[in-house]
Amino acid sequence: MNANEVDILLADDSQDDIDLTLHALRAENLANHVFVARDGEEALDFLFCTGPHVARSFDHPPKLVLLDLKMPKVDGMQVLEQIKSDPRTKTIPVVLMTSSREERDMVSGYSLGVNSYIQKPVDFDEFRKVVKLLGMYWLVTNRPPVTNGASQLGGLMK
Amino acid sequence: MNANEVDILLADDSQDDIDLTLHALRAENLANHVFVARDGEEALDFLFCTGPHVARSFDHPPKLVLLDLKMPKVDGMQVLEQIKSDPRTKTIPVVLMTSSREERDMVSGYSLGVNSYIQKPVDFDEFRKVVKLLGMYWLVTNRPPVTNGASQLGGLMK
Repeated sequence: MNANEVDILLADDSQDDIDLTLHALRAENLANHVFVARDGEEALDFLFCTGPHVARSFDHPPKLVLLDLKMPKVDGMQVLEQIKSDPRTKTIPVVLMTSSREERDMVSGYSLGVNSYIQKPVDFDEFRKVVKLLGMYWLVTNRPPVTNGASQLGGLMK
Repeated sequence: MNANEVDILLADDSQDDIDLTLHALRAENLANHVFVARDGEEALDFLFCTGPHVARSFDHPPKLVLLDLKMPKVDGMQVLEQIKSDPRTKTIPVVLMTSSREERDMVSGYSLGVNSYIQKPVDFDEFRKVVKLLGMYWLVTNRPPVTNGASQLGGLMK
């Protein structure tokens, strides 16, 4: 996969949650262009084209960043803050996914400009449904700020 | 309907689009708490608890503001700007819905902090599908910043 063709940057340190997410996206044929980062530092390297991702271009942002809140090295809230405070990345849609029910986290996320905030369901089937809906919404229905000339709308809405 | 119990503020000047949107939401049982504003000024009065909505409270924001881009008096982009630049309203999720395909509008919307940007499909069935997905995503899956203590997650995910 070309790093400039990534649709979703999935940043999560839980292998179980990564597997569940990819499985649900795959079932909707939405998993072909997912890049997985295992911590916040790796996510930032990817997004800001640094370290191992120096060859990437800001001209090809992912259509969605799916951020786990609690991650090693740099947590999801800090990654969100950096994305939304830099003009090169601030327009990229970011969804925070967390097991936390804390109102404080939600308010912080929205204040920093998160596009959406999802609570990870504990139940497998619910998790699958949420990821399916999330993938359909952000990859098919939402119009990302840079579309590279191709209309995403309706293409997969069967 | 109590104005403090509104789930969706729908601001649109096209009666056809309002009818289509309400019809699609109704089919998913998501239309019980929708307030319709016919122009940007009415939307702002609702959101900022002024004019006819002086009795509303900032403590009960809608879970979603669905904004048409082109509206009389105050257009959608100006409404968005006011929502996202005021700490009392900036955490409310806002989706811009437009018939415009202009890249410029999209970039402006995201730069102003819009949560999501949707292009209205011309085809009736596609419109219905998009509104259904949008309603399910923002009212059922997304966690709004103020939940009034009730979990929305999974409740309607059948």
